[in-house]
Amino acid sequence: MSEEIHHADGDELQQHLDQVQTLLARQKLVEGLVHRQDMPRHELVEGLVHKQHLNELRTRLDHMHPADIAYILEALPLDERLIVWDLVKAERDGDILLEVSDAVRESLIANMDSHELVAAAESLDADELADLAPDLPHEVIEGVFQSLSVEEREQLRAAMSYPEESVGSIMDFDMVTVREDVTLEVVLRYLRLFDELPDHTDQLFVVDRDEHLKGVLPLNRLLVSDPDTEVGTLMLTDFIDLQPGDEAEEAAQAFERYDLVSAPVVDSQHRLIGRVTVNTVVDFIREESEAEQLAQAGLKEEEDIFAPVWDSVKNRWAWLAVNLVTAFVASRVIGAFEGSIEKLVALAALMPIVAGIGGNSGNQTITMIVRAIAMGQVKPDAIRRLLRKEINVALINGIVWGGLLGVAAWWMYGSASLGLVMTSAMTLNLLLAAVAGVSIPLLRERLGADPAVGGSVLITALTDSGGFFIFLGLATLFLM
Amino acid sequence: MSEEIHHADGDELQQHLDQVQTLLARQKLVEGLVHRQDMPRHELVEGLVHKQHLNELRTRLDHMHPADIAYILEALPLDERLIVWDLVKAERDGDILLEVSDAVRESLIANMDSHELVAAAESLDADELADLAPDLPHEVIEGVFQSLSVEEREQLRAAMSYPEESVGSIMDFDMVTVREDVTLEVVLRYLRLFDELPDHTDQLFVVDRDEHLKGVLPLNRLLVSDPDTEVGTLMLTDFIDLQPGDEAEEAAQAFERYDLVSAPVVDSQHRLIGRVTVNTVVDFIREESEAEQLAQAGLKEEEDIFAPVWDSVKNRWAWLAVNLVTAFVASRVIGAFEGSIEKLVALAALMPIVAGIGGNSGNQTITMIVRAIAMGQVKPDAIRRLLRKEINVALINGIVWGGLLGVAAWWMYGSASLGLVMTSAMTLNLLLAAVAGVSIPLLRERLGADPAVGGSVLITALTDSGGFFIFLGLATLFLM
Repeated sequence: MSEEIHHADGDELQQHLDQVQTLLARQKLVEGLVHRQDMPRHELVEGLVHKQHLNELRTRLDHMHPADIAYILEALPLDERLIVWDLVKAERDGDILLEVSDAVRESLIANMDSHELVAAAESLDADELADLAPDLPHEVIEGVFQSLSVEEREQLRAAMSYPEESVGSIMDFDMVTVREDVTLEVVLRYLRLFDELPDHTDQLFVVDRDEHLKGVLPLNRLLVSDPDTEVGTLMLTDFIDLQPGDEAEEAAQAFERYDLVSAPVVDSQHRLIGRVTVNTVVDFIREESEAEQLAQAGLKEEEDIFAPVWDSVKNRWAWLAVNLVTAFVASRVIGAFEGSIEKLVALAALMPIVAGIGGNSGNQTITMIVRAIAMGQVKPDAIRRLLRKEINVALINGIVWGGLLGVAAWWMYGSASLGLVMTSAMTLNLLLAAVAGVSIPLLRERLGADPAVGGSVLITALTDSGGFFIFLGLATLFLM
Repeated sequence: MSEEIHHADGDELQQHLDQVQTLLARQKLVEGLVHRQDMPRHELVEGLVHKQHLNELRTRLDHMHPADIAYILEALPLDERLIVWDLVKAERDGDILLEVSDAVRESLIANMDSHELVAAAESLDADELADLAPDLPHEVIEGVFQSLSVEEREQLRAAMSYPEESVGSIMDFDMVTVREDVTLEVVLRYLRLFDELPDHTDQLFVVDRDEHLKGVLPLNRLLVSDPDTEVGTLMLTDFIDLQPGDEAEEAAQAFERYDLVSAPVVDSQHRLIGRVTVNTVVDFIREESEAEQLAQAGLKEEEDIFAPVWDSVKNRWAWLAVNLVTAFVASRVIGAFEGSIEKLVALAALMPIVAGIGGNSGNQTITMIVRAIAMGQVKPDAIRRLLRKEINVALINGIVWGGLLGVAAWWMYGSASLGLVMTSAMTLNLLLAAVAGVSIPLLRERLGADPAVGGSVLITALTDSGGFFIFLGLATLFLM
C-alpha cells in the first residue's frame, strides 16, 4: 500500500463523503446552468468550471483508500455512484470491486465494458479473482485466464473449486516459507531480498523440499532470538493447520479462541497450499452475522438501499410468501371456530394476546438454543435437560403472566371461567413454544440441517395457529 | 504461551469435551459404587480408582489452552463444571475467567473464596483486570490493587475509567516503542533484549522523549530493509490513531476497512497511551452482533444454558412484559370493534393476516435501514428518498398480495366488498409499515438514540394495532 494513500477515521470518512457530495452537487449545478442558458459563448467557461470540480474530485479519490472509495460508492445513489466510479483510476478498479457489497458490485460491473473488466481483474491475486469471478461475464474470465502464469492458473482453478464458506474459499497464496536447517541470520538476510512481505505475515512457514509443513516460525520469536539459532530448534510444531475443505466457521472459531493472525492451510498429504489471515476471518464473521440478521427478518440478501424498487421487491418476496401461507393457515384455524366467536365475541379480542406472547417467548427460547448450538455447547443428547428447564420457565411465565391476563379478562368481561380459559390457554401455548423452541433447532441439527434458518418463522407460525387453536378450542369446550 | 499447551481444531475440541464427560461419568459411577455398597474394605480401592480418573482429567486440562477449558466449562452443567474448575491449576484461573461468558464467569466466581480470587486476578495485566473487575467483590479488587506497582495502578485506574464500548475499554498497554533517530540495526538488537514480544506486535511505535507518537514502523518494513536505515526515514506517518474516548465500533470499522492487526491509542496531546489489537476487535464484533441478536429476540443478556430456571425467567421478563402491554393494546383495538365482529364473524378470521403481513414487511424494512445506518451509509437527510422507495415497494406488495388475499376472502365468504376491504387494509397497513420502518430508526438516529434497540418490537406493535384498526375500521365503515 503506497504511503500517499490516506487512512481516514470515522469522522474523516464522513467528511470525505460530504466533500464528494458537495462536488457532485456543484457539478450538477453547473451542468444545469449549461443546459438551461444554452449560451454557446459561455459553454467554454462553464465547461472549464465543470472540469475543475471533477478534477478536484478525481484528485481526492486518488488519495483515498480503496475501502473508503467503496464506502462512498455504497452511500451514493446510482447516477452519482457511476460518475464517481468513472473518475477512479482504472488500475484501482479491482481492489475497489472487492470491497463493495455484492449489490453495489453488480451495479458497477453492469456499467463496465469487458475491456475495463479484464483490466480490473488482471490487477488482482488469484484468491481475490476467485471471489470476484462469480459476478464477471464468462468472456471476461476467459480473457483473464489467458493472461495468467501457469502457477496462477492452478491457484485460480483451485480457489474457484472450493465451496462457499469453506476454508479454501477464504485462503490466499501469499506465504513466506523457509527451511528448518538454516539459521535465523540466513532467514533475516533472505527476508531482505523481498520488496515487501505479504500483508499479515506474522509467521514464516517451515517446509521441507516437498512442501510438507514442518512447523511455523513466528516473527516475534525470530526477532528476539539469537541469529545463530537454527530455524528447526526455534519453530513451533504444535500449531493450528487448516484443510481447504474445513468449514470457514470452524477456522473463524479457531482464530477467535487462539487469537491468531494467520494460519497455514495444508492438503491431505500435509503439504502447505495456502494460508488464512485474520482480516479475511473478520470479513467472514461480519458477513455471517449480517446474513443471519437479514435471513431472520426475511430478506434474501443484502440490499443496495438505492436499488430500483423492483430489486427490493424481489429480495423480499420469498419470505413474505411463506408468511402469507402461515398467516392463512392461522386464519383458517380461527375460521373453524367462527361459531364460538359469534357467541362470545370477546374471544376475538383476546386471542391475539395468547398467540403473540407465545410467539415472543418461543423466539426467546429458539434464539438461545440456536446460539448455544452454534457455539458447540449443546449436543443433541442435551435435549432432555434443556426441555425440562424451558418447560419450567414456560410454566412460571404461564402462571404469572397468564394469571394476570386471566384476571384482566375476568374483570373486563365479568366472566371467571373466561379468565380461567385465558390463563390455561396462555400456559399451554407457552409450553408449546418451549417444546418447539428446543426441539426444532436440535432436531434440525441432528438431521444435519442449519438450525438457524427460518426458525423464527416456523415457531411463530406454530404459536400463532397453535395459540388460536388452544384458546378457541378450550373456550368452545368449556364456555359454549 | 508455552509450547506444551495444545491447540485444538474443532473436532479435537469436541473430543476434549467427550473425554472430560467420560471421565466425569466414570468418577460419578465410582462414587456411586462407594456410596451404594458402603463397604469400608473396598473404599480404599475405589478411592484410588476415583483419584486416578481425576488425575487423568487434571493432566488433560493442564495441556489444554485456556480458551478450550473455557469452552468445556461452558458446555458442562453446574455440578460437573465446578469439579473441572477445581482441577484447573490456580495460576491459570485468571486467563480462563477472561475467556468464559459472563453468565458462566459469575457461576465460577461465586464458588471461589477471596484468597483464590486475589491470586487469579494478580496473574493478569491491568487491561485484563479491568475487564474482570466488575464481577469481583470489592475486597478482592482492594487486595489486588495493593499488590500492583505504581504504573500498573495508574493503568488499571485508567482502564476502569473508560465507558463500556469505548476504545479505552478495549485497549491494552503492551507496546514496544523506539526512537526515530536510531538505525534498524539498533532496533533489531534492542528487540533481542526481550524474552518475547507482546502478542500481536505487527508494528513498533515511534515516539519522542515525551511519548508523543511520531510514526509507526511495521515489522514487515523492518525485516525487508537495510539495517543501516534510520527509523525516521522508514516509519509511516499516515496511520490510524485512536483516542480512548472514541467508540469501539468506530475502531472496529477502521480495523475492517484497513485490515489492521494493531493500532495505537493516543491522548489529546498525541502521547501514546496504549494500543488496540485485532483479537480484541474480533471479540468485540462477535459480542456486538450477539447482543443485537439477543436483544432482537427480547433477551436481556446471554444465558448460561444450564443456569437455574429463575435466572432464565429474569433474563426474559423485561421484554415479555413490553410484549404483554403491546398485545393488550392491540386487543383493546379489537375490543372497540366487537360490534362489527359480532355482525360479521369473518372479520375475526381475516384480521390476523393483515396484522401479520404488515409486521413481517415492516421488519424487513427496519432491518435494512438499521443496517444501512450502522454502516454509515444513510444520513438523516436521505429520509425522503428512502421513504419514496419503500412506499413504492409497499404499494406493489399491497396490490399483489393484498389483491390475492382479497380474491381469497371474496371466494371464501362470497362477498366482493369484503375482498375489497381486505385488499385496501393490507395495502394501507403495508404503507404504515414502510413509513414506520424508515422513520423510526432515522428519527431515533437524529435524536441521538440507538436506532436498533427494540425497533422490531415497536414496529410489530404498530402494525398489529394499526392493522386491526385499519381493517376493522374499513369493515365498519363500508360493510356494516
